[in-house]
Amino acid sequence: MRRGKKRVVSERRRLYELLDEATLCHWAMSIDDAPRVLPTVFARVGETMYLHGSTGARGLREAGTGTDVCVAVTLLDGIVYARAAFHNSVNYRSAVIHGRARDVDDESEKETALRAITEHVAPGSWDYSRRPTSKENAATAVVAVPLHEASVKVRDAPPGDDTEDIASGMRWAGVLPLHNHWGEPRRCPDASADIEVPEHVRARVSGAR
Amino acid sequence: MRRGKKRVVSERRRLYELLDEATLCHWAMSIDDAPRVLPTVFARVGETMYLHGSTGARGLREAGTGTDVCVAVTLLDGIVYARAAFHNSVNYRSAVIHGRARDVDDESEKETALRAITEHVAPGSWDYSRRPTSKENAATAVVAVPLHEASVKVRDAPPGDDTEDIASGMRWAGVLPLHNHWGEPRRCPDASADIEVPEHVRARVSGAR
Repeated sequence: MRRGKKRVVSERRRLYELLDEATLCHWAMSIDDAPRVLPTVFARVGETMYLHGSTGARGLREAGTGTDVCVAVTLLDGIVYARAAFHNSVNYRSAVIHGRARDVDDESEKETALRAITEHVAPGSWDYSRRPTSKENAATAVVAVPLHEASVKVRDAPPGDDTEDIASGMRWAGVLPLHNHWGEPRRCPDASADIEVPEHVRARVSGAR
Repeated sequence: MRRGKKRVVSERRRLYELLDEATLCHWAMSIDDAPRVLPTVFARVGETMYLHGSTGARGLREAGTGTDVCVAVTLLDGIVYARAAFHNSVNYRSAVIHGRARDVDDESEKETALRAITEHVAPGSWDYSRRPTSKENAATAVVAVPLHEASVKVRDAPPGDDTEDIASGMRWAGVLPLHNHWGEPRRCPDASADIEVPEHVRARVSGAR
Protein backbone atom coordinates (compact mmCIF):
# COMPACT_ATOMS: atom_id res chain seq x y z
CA MET A 1 0.00 0.00 0.00
CA ARG A 2 1.73 3.13 -1.15
CA ARG A 3 1.13 6.34 0.70
CA GLY A 4 1.96 9.19 -1.57
CA LYS A 5 1.06 12.72 -0.58
CA LYS A 6 -1.73 12.60 -3.11
CA ARG A 7 -3.59 10.13 -0.91
CA VAL A 8 -3.92 12.58 1.96
CA VAL A 9 -7.40 13.97 2.27
CA SER A 10 -7.76 17.10 4.30
CA GLU A 11 -11.47 17.40 4.78
CA ARG A 12 -12.81 16.85 8.25
CA ARG A 13 -15.99 15.45 6.74
CA ARG A 14 -14.13 12.49 5.26
CA LEU A 15 -12.69 11.63 8.67
CA TYR A 16 -16.11 11.64 10.29
CA GLU A 17 -17.72 9.63 7.47
CA LEU A 18 -15.03 6.98 7.73
CA LEU A 19 -15.24 6.72 11.51
CA ASP A 20 -19.01 6.54 11.36
CA GLU A 21 -18.96 3.78 8.72
CA ALA A 22 -16.29 1.51 10.21
CA THR A 23 -17.07 -0.85 13.09
CA LEU A 24 -13.57 -1.66 14.28
CA CYS A 25 -10.47 0.35 14.99
CA HIS A 26 -6.94 -0.74 15.82
CA TRP A 27 -5.35 1.20 18.64
CA ALA A 28 -1.71 1.18 19.54
CA MET A 29 0.26 2.24 22.55
CA SER A 30 3.62 1.49 24.10
CA ILE A 31 3.70 -0.65 27.23
CA ASP A 32 7.13 -1.05 28.83
CA ASP A 33 8.58 0.45 25.63
CA ALA A 34 7.09 -2.33 23.50
CA PRO A 35 4.45 -1.50 20.88
CA ARG A 36 1.02 -3.05 21.33
CA VAL A 37 -1.89 -2.95 18.94
CA LEU A 38 -5.38 -4.29 19.54
CA PRO A 39 -8.66 -4.24 17.65
CA THR A 40 -11.76 -2.91 19.33
CA VAL A 41 -15.13 -1.35 18.70
CA PHE A 42 -15.50 2.39 19.13
CA ALA A 43 -17.73 5.36 18.44
CA ARG A 44 -17.30 8.99 17.55
CA VAL A 45 -19.13 11.73 19.43
CA GLY A 46 -18.34 15.10 17.88
CA GLU A 47 -14.60 15.68 18.16
CA THR A 48 -13.99 12.67 20.40
CA MET A 49 -13.50 8.97 19.81
CA TYR A 50 -14.54 6.56 22.55
CA LEU A 51 -13.16 3.06 23.04
CA HIS A 52 -14.25 0.63 25.71
CA GLY A 53 -13.30 -2.67 27.21
CA SER A 54 -13.14 -4.64 30.40
CA THR A 55 -11.51 -2.89 33.37
CA GLY A 56 -9.41 -6.05 33.59
CA ALA A 57 -7.69 -5.33 30.26
CA ARG A 58 -4.22 -3.96 30.92
CA GLY A 59 -4.08 -1.89 27.74
CA LEU A 60 -7.17 0.12 28.63
CA ARG A 61 -6.00 0.61 32.21
CA GLU A 62 -2.71 2.00 30.93
CA ALA A 63 -4.42 4.16 28.33
CA GLY A 64 -6.62 5.60 31.04
CA THR A 65 -3.58 7.03 32.78
CA GLY A 66 -3.09 9.55 30.00
CA THR A 67 -0.88 7.61 27.64
CA ASP A 68 -0.20 8.55 24.03
CA VAL A 69 -2.16 6.34 21.69
CA CYS A 70 -2.42 5.97 17.95
CA VAL A 71 -5.64 4.68 16.47
CA ALA A 72 -6.17 3.49 12.90
CA VAL A 73 -9.51 2.95 11.21
CA THR A 74 -9.33 1.30 7.80
CA LEU A 75 -11.84 0.17 5.23
CA LEU A 76 -10.73 -1.96 2.29
CA ASP A 77 -12.74 -1.03 -0.81
CA GLY A 78 -11.17 -3.08 -3.57
CA ILE A 79 -8.17 -4.76 -5.13
CA VAL A 80 -6.29 -2.85 -7.81
CA TYR A 81 -5.07 -5.13 -10.60
CA ALA A 82 -2.33 -3.40 -12.59
CA ARG A 83 -0.49 -4.59 -15.70
CA ALA A 84 2.73 -4.51 -13.69
CA ALA A 85 2.93 -6.36 -10.36
CA PHE A 86 4.75 -3.33 -8.95
CA HIS A 87 1.64 -1.20 -9.43
CA ASN A 88 -0.81 -3.67 -7.90
CA SER A 89 -2.48 -1.96 -4.97
CA VAL A 90 -5.66 -1.73 -2.96
CA ASN A 91 -8.36 0.91 -2.81
CA TYR A 92 -8.98 1.90 0.77
CA ARG A 93 -9.93 4.64 3.19
CA SER A 94 -7.80 5.02 6.27
CA ALA A 95 -7.68 7.37 9.23
CA VAL A 96 -4.81 7.56 11.69
CA ILE A 97 -5.39 9.46 14.92
CA HIS A 98 -2.72 10.51 17.40
CA GLY A 99 -3.71 11.66 20.83
CA ARG A 100 -3.48 11.37 24.56
CA ALA A 101 -6.04 8.95 25.93
CA ARG A 102 -8.18 10.06 28.84
CA ASP A 103 -10.04 7.79 31.24
CA VAL A 104 -13.75 8.57 31.23
CA ASP A 105 -14.92 8.41 34.82
CA ASP A 106 -17.66 11.01 34.80
CA GLU A 107 -20.87 8.96 34.96
CA SER A 108 -22.75 11.14 32.50
CA GLU A 109 -19.96 11.14 29.90
CA LYS A 110 -19.50 7.40 30.39
CA GLU A 111 -23.17 6.76 29.64
CA THR A 112 -22.96 9.01 26.57
CA ALA A 113 -19.94 7.01 25.38
CA LEU A 114 -21.45 3.58 26.06
CA ARG A 115 -24.67 4.58 24.36
CA ALA A 116 -22.71 5.89 21.36
CA ILE A 117 -20.63 2.71 21.09
CA THR A 118 -23.72 0.50 21.37
CA GLU A 119 -25.56 2.55 18.74
CA HIS A 120 -22.53 2.65 16.47
CA VAL A 121 -22.02 -1.10 16.47
CA ALA A 122 -25.66 -2.15 16.72
CA PRO A 123 -27.94 0.77 15.81
CA GLY A 124 -31.25 0.71 17.66
CA SER A 125 -29.93 -1.53 20.43
CA TRP A 126 -29.68 1.04 23.17
CA ASP A 127 -33.42 1.64 23.33
CA TYR A 128 -34.29 -2.01 22.71
CA SER A 129 -31.89 -3.59 25.21
CA ARG A 130 -31.85 -3.68 28.95
CA ARG A 131 -29.72 -0.69 29.94
CA PRO A 132 -26.50 -1.24 31.87
CA THR A 133 -26.69 -1.39 35.65
CA SER A 134 -24.28 0.70 37.71
CA LYS A 135 -22.38 -2.51 38.45
CA GLU A 136 -22.03 -3.22 34.73
CA ASN A 137 -20.90 0.34 34.09
CA ALA A 138 -18.28 0.00 36.79
CA ALA A 139 -16.92 -3.13 35.09
CA THR A 140 -16.49 -1.25 31.82
CA ALA A 141 -13.51 0.97 31.14
CA VAL A 142 -14.07 3.81 28.68
CA VAL A 143 -11.28 5.82 27.16
CA ALA A 144 -11.60 9.03 25.16
CA VAL A 145 -9.21 10.05 22.39
CA PRO A 146 -9.46 13.56 20.90
CA LEU A 147 -9.72 13.77 17.12
CA HIS A 148 -7.66 16.97 16.75
CA GLU A 149 -4.66 15.21 15.28
CA ALA A 150 -5.96 12.95 12.55
CA SER A 151 -4.99 12.24 8.98
CA VAL A 152 -7.11 10.55 6.35
CA LYS A 153 -5.79 8.78 3.29
CA VAL A 154 -7.91 7.54 0.46
CA ARG A 155 -7.07 5.52 -2.61
CA ASP A 156 -10.05 5.32 -4.93
CA ALA A 157 -8.64 5.04 -8.41
CA PRO A 158 -7.78 2.68 -11.23
CA PRO A 159 -4.25 1.24 -11.41
CA GLY A 160 -1.45 3.68 -12.16
CA ASP A 161 0.55 1.71 -14.68
CA ASP A 162 3.53 2.98 -16.64
CA THR A 163 2.93 4.41 -20.09
CA GLU A 164 4.76 1.56 -21.85
CA ASP A 165 2.73 -1.12 -20.09
CA ILE A 166 -0.53 0.66 -20.99
CA ALA A 167 0.57 1.16 -24.59
CA SER A 168 1.49 -2.50 -25.05
CA GLY A 169 -2.20 -3.38 -24.61
CA MET A 170 -1.22 -6.88 -23.51
CA ARG A 171 -2.94 -7.15 -20.17
CA TRP A 172 -6.24 -6.37 -18.48
CA ALA A 173 -6.16 -3.82 -15.68
CA GLY A 174 -8.87 -2.65 -13.35
CA VAL A 175 -10.39 -2.75 -9.90
CA LEU A 176 -12.23 -5.57 -8.16
CA PRO A 177 -14.55 -3.86 -5.65
CA LEU A 178 -15.07 -5.38 -2.22
CA HIS A 179 -18.48 -5.11 -0.60
CA ASN A 180 -19.87 -6.04 2.79
CA HIS A 181 -23.33 -7.32 3.43
CA TRP A 182 -25.27 -8.60 6.39
CA GLY A 183 -26.47 -12.19 6.36
CA GLU A 184 -29.68 -13.58 7.84
CA PRO A 185 -29.92 -12.95 11.60
CA ARG A 186 -29.29 -16.12 13.64
CA ARG A 187 -31.46 -16.40 16.72
CA CYS A 188 -29.72 -17.25 19.97
CA PRO A 189 -30.32 -20.97 20.75
CA ASP A 190 -31.74 -20.10 24.16
CA ALA A 191 -34.21 -17.56 22.73
CA SER A 192 -37.85 -18.26 21.98
CA ALA A 193 -38.85 -18.49 18.33
CA ASP A 194 -41.95 -16.52 19.31
CA ILE A 195 -39.93 -13.33 19.57
CA GLU A 196 -39.52 -11.89 16.10
CA VAL A 197 -36.31 -10.34 14.84
CA PRO A 198 -36.74 -6.70 15.87
CA GLU A 199 -37.00 -3.97 13.28
CA HIS A 200 -33.59 -2.40 14.03
CA VAL A 201 -31.89 -5.70 13.18
CA ARG A 202 -34.20 -6.59 10.28
CA ALA A 203 -33.73 -3.16 8.68
CA ARG A 204 -30.00 -3.63 8.65
CA VAL A 205 -30.21 -6.82 6.60
CA SER A 206 -32.26 -5.08 3.96
CA GLY A 207 -29.73 -2.26 3.90
CA ALA A 208 -32.30 0.26 5.04
CA ARG A 209 -30.30 1.26 8.10
CA MET B 1 -14.91 -6.36 22.64
CA ARG B 2 -14.15 -8.42 25.68
CA ARG B 3 -11.07 -10.56 25.75
CA GLY B 4 -11.55 -13.26 28.31
CA LYS B 5 -9.09 -16.12 28.46
CA LYS B 6 -11.70 -18.32 26.89
CA ARG B 7 -11.24 -16.49 23.60
CA VAL B 8 -7.62 -17.52 23.24
CA VAL B 9 -7.12 -20.17 20.61
CA SER B 10 -3.88 -22.07 20.82
CA GLU B 11 -3.77 -23.88 17.53
CA ARG B 12 -1.19 -22.79 15.02
CA ARG B 13 -3.55 -23.77 12.23
CA ARG B 14 -6.03 -21.07 13.23
CA LEU B 15 -3.31 -18.43 13.06
CA TYR B 16 -2.33 -19.47 9.56
CA GLU B 17 -5.92 -19.67 8.34
CA LEU B 18 -6.63 -16.18 9.62
CA LEU B 19 -3.49 -14.67 8.10
CA ASP B 20 -4.17 -16.38 4.80
CA GLU B 21 -7.78 -15.15 4.69
CA ALA B 22 -7.24 -11.50 5.69
CA THR B 23 -5.96 -8.93 3.19
CA LEU B 24 -4.88 -6.16 5.56
CA CYS B 25 -2.92 -6.02 8.77
CA HIS B 26 -2.30 -3.15 11.17
CA TRP B 27 1.26 -2.89 12.36
CA ALA B 28 2.48 -0.81 15.23
CA MET B 29 5.85 0.42 16.36
CA SER B 30 7.23 3.19 18.50
CA ILE B 31 8.94 6.08 16.75
CA ASP B 32 10.56 8.64 19.06
CA ASP B 33 8.68 6.95 21.93
CA ALA B 34 5.31 7.65 20.30
CA PRO B 35 3.12 4.77 19.16
CA ARG B 36 2.34 4.55 15.45
CA VAL B 37 -0.02 2.19 13.73
CA LEU B 38 -0.57 1.79 9.99
CA PRO B 39 -2.58 -0.51 7.77
CA THR B 40 -0.85 -2.41 5.02
CA VAL B 41 -1.08 -5.52 2.89
CA PHE B 42 1.05 -8.52 3.80
CA ALA B 43 1.60 -12.21 3.17
CA ARG B 44 2.60 -15.23 5.20
CA VAL B 45 5.32 -17.58 4.01
CA GLY B 46 5.69 -20.46 6.43
CA GLU B 47 6.65 -19.03 9.81
CA THR B 48 7.26 -15.52 8.50
CA MET B 49 5.03 -12.55 7.76
CA TYR B 50 6.14 -10.11 5.09
CA LEU B 51 5.06 -6.48 4.83
CA HIS B 52 6.07 -4.09 2.11
CA GLY B 53 5.90 -0.46 1.20
CA SER B 54 7.75 2.39 -0.41
CA THR B 55 11.36 2.85 0.70
CA GLY B 56 10.31 6.45 1.29
CA ALA B 57 7.98 5.46 4.14
CA ARG B 58 9.65 6.27 7.44
CA GLY B 59 7.90 3.52 9.38
CA LEU B 60 9.24 0.77 7.14
CA ARG B 61 12.73 2.25 7.17
CA GLU B 62 12.70 2.25 10.97
CA ALA B 63 11.25 -1.24 11.14
CA GLY B 64 14.01 -2.45 8.88
CA THR B 65 16.59 -1.47 11.47
CA GLY B 66 15.44 -4.26 13.76
CA THR B 67 12.71 -2.54 15.70
CA ASP B 68 10.10 -4.30 17.81
CA VAL B 69 6.76 -4.33 16.05
CA CYS B 70 3.31 -5.55 16.90
CA VAL B 71 1.01 -6.61 14.10
CA ALA B 72 -2.72 -7.24 14.35
CA VAL B 73 -4.85 -9.04 11.80
CA THR B 74 -8.58 -8.90 12.45
CA LEU B 75 -11.67 -10.15 10.68
CA LEU B 76 -15.11 -9.02 11.79
CA ASP B 77 -17.59 -11.87 11.41
CA GLY B 78 -20.79 -10.52 12.92
CA ILE B 79 -22.59 -8.32 15.40
CA VAL B 80 -23.78 -9.94 18.62
CA TYR B 81 -27.15 -8.57 19.75
CA ALA B 82 -27.73 -9.39 23.42
CA ARG B 83 -30.78 -8.72 25.58
CA ALA B 84 -28.61 -6.48 27.75
CA ALA B 85 -26.57 -3.68 26.16
CA PHE B 86 -23.67 -4.69 28.41
CA HIS B 87 -23.46 -8.06 26.66
CA ASN B 88 -23.59 -6.69 23.11
CA SER B 89 -20.44 -7.76 21.34
CA VAL B 90 -18.95 -8.72 18.00
CA ASN B 91 -17.90 -12.06 16.60
CA TYR B 92 -14.37 -11.82 15.25
CA ARG B 93 -11.08 -13.55 14.65
CA SER B 94 -7.95 -11.71 15.66
CA ALA B 95 -4.25 -12.42 15.68
CA VAL B 96 -1.67 -10.28 17.44
CA ILE B 97 1.98 -10.87 16.59
CA HIS B 98 4.96 -9.50 18.50
CA GLY B 99 8.38 -9.64 16.98
CA ARG B 100 11.51 -7.91 15.84
CA ALA B 101 11.24 -6.70 12.26
CA ARG B 102 14.03 -7.53 9.88
CA ASP B 103 14.83 -5.73 6.63
CA VAL B 104 14.74 -8.11 3.68
CA ASP B 105 17.65 -7.21 1.43
CA ASP B 106 18.53 -10.61 0.02
CA GLU B 107 17.31 -10.46 -3.58
CA SER B 108 15.98 -13.99 -3.60
CA GLU B 109 14.05 -13.63 -0.34
CA LYS B 110 12.76 -10.26 -1.49
CA GLU B 111 11.36 -11.78 -4.68
CA THR B 112 9.78 -14.60 -2.66
CA ALA B 113 8.16 -12.00 -0.39
CA LEU B 114 6.93 -9.74 -3.19
CA ARG B 115 5.53 -12.70 -5.06
CA ALA B 116 3.79 -13.92 -1.91
CA ILE B 117 2.28 -10.49 -1.17
CA THR B 118 1.10 -10.11 -4.77
CA GLU B 119 -0.44 -13.59 -4.76
CA HIS B 120 -1.99 -13.07 -1.36
CA VAL B 121 -3.73 -9.82 -2.31
CA ALA B 122 -4.45 -10.65 -5.94
CA PRO B 123 -4.12 -14.40 -6.54
CA GLY B 124 -2.94 -15.25 -10.05
CA SER B 125 -1.45 -11.80 -10.62
CA TRP B 126 2.22 -12.72 -10.35
CA ASP B 127 2.19 -14.92 -13.42
CA TYR B 128 -0.22 -12.66 -15.34
CA SER B 129 1.50 -9.33 -14.66
CA ARG B 130 4.71 -7.84 -15.86
CA ARG B 131 7.26 -8.84 -13.22
CA PRO B 132 9.07 -6.14 -11.23
CA THR B 133 12.25 -4.70 -12.68
CA SER B 134 15.32 -4.43 -10.49
CA LYS B 135 14.67 -0.70 -10.25
CA GLU B 136 11.14 -1.37 -9.01
CA ASN B 137 12.42 -3.91 -6.51
CA ALA B 138 14.93 -1.37 -5.23
CA ALA B 139 12.12 1.13 -4.65
CA THR B 140 10.22 -1.38 -2.53
CA ALA B 141 11.06 -1.98 1.11
CA VAL B 142 10.21 -5.42 2.47
CA VAL B 143 10.20 -6.26 6.12
CA ALA B 144 9.95 -9.72 7.70
CA VAL B 145 8.31 -10.41 11.05
CA PRO B 146 8.66 -13.88 12.62
CA LEU B 147 5.43 -15.58 13.71
CA HIS B 148 6.88 -17.28 16.79
CA GLU B 149 5.12 -14.98 19.23
CA ALA B 150 1.52 -14.80 18.15
CA SER B 151 -1.81 -15.10 19.89
CA VAL B 152 -5.16 -15.76 18.28
CA LYS B 153 -8.51 -14.87 19.77
CA VAL B 154 -11.82 -15.92 18.38
CA ARG B 155 -15.35 -15.05 19.37
CA ASP B 156 -17.82 -17.17 17.45
CA ALA B 157 -20.82 -17.56 19.71
CA PRO B 158 -24.30 -16.30 20.48
CA PRO B 159 -24.72 -13.55 23.08
CA GLY B 160 -23.86 -14.44 26.66
CA ASP B 161 -26.77 -12.84 28.49
CA ASP B 162 -27.50 -13.14 32.19
CA THR B 163 -29.91 -15.86 33.32
CA GLU B 164 -32.59 -13.38 34.43
CA ASP B 165 -32.57 -11.55 31.09
CA ILE B 166 -32.90 -14.85 29.21
CA ALA B 167 -35.66 -16.07 31.52
CA SER B 168 -37.68 -12.89 31.12
CA GLY B 169 -38.17 -13.79 27.45
CA MET B 170 -38.75 -10.13 26.66
CA ARG B 171 -36.20 -9.50 23.97
CA TRP B 172 -34.75 -11.06 20.83
CA ALA B 173 -31.08 -12.02 20.93
CA GLY B 174 -28.82 -13.39 18.26
CA VAL B 175 -26.06 -12.74 15.78
CA LEU B 176 -26.11 -10.74 12.56
CA PRO B 177 -23.38 -12.28 10.36
CA LEU B 178 -21.19 -10.04 8.24
CA HIS B 179 -20.06 -11.28 4.82
CA ASN B 180 -17.73 -9.95 2.16
CA HIS B 181 -18.21 -10.36 -1.53
CA TRP B 182 -16.47 -9.16 -4.66
CA GLY B 183 -18.37 -6.89 -7.01
CA GLU B 184 -18.13 -6.77 -10.79
CA PRO B 185 -14.59 -5.99 -12.00
CA ARG B 186 -14.27 -2.39 -13.27
CA ARG B 187 -11.98 -2.06 -16.26
CA CYS B 188 -9.36 0.65 -16.12
CA PRO B 189 -10.51 3.62 -18.28
CA ASP B 190 -7.29 3.49 -20.30
CA ALA B 191 -7.63 -0.25 -21.05
CA SER B 192 -9.06 -1.69 -24.22
CA ALA B 193 -12.47 -3.35 -24.00
CA ASP B 194 -11.04 -6.05 -26.28
CA ILE B 195 -9.03 -7.51 -23.41
CA GLU B 196 -11.33 -9.75 -21.41
CA VAL B 197 -11.29 -9.93 -17.63
CA PRO B 198 -8.71 -12.64 -16.98
CA GLU B 199 -9.68 -15.90 -15.35
CA HIS B 200 -7.87 -15.23 -12.05
CA VAL B 201 -9.98 -12.11 -11.53
CA ARG B 202 -13.20 -13.57 -12.91
CA ALA B 203 -12.89 -16.70 -10.73
CA ARG B 204 -12.69 -14.56 -7.64
CA VAL B 205 -16.03 -12.86 -8.36
CA SER B 206 -17.74 -16.23 -8.63
CA GLY B 207 -16.12 -17.28 -5.36
CA ALA B 208 -14.21 -20.09 -7.03
CA ARG B 209 -10.84 -18.78 -5.91
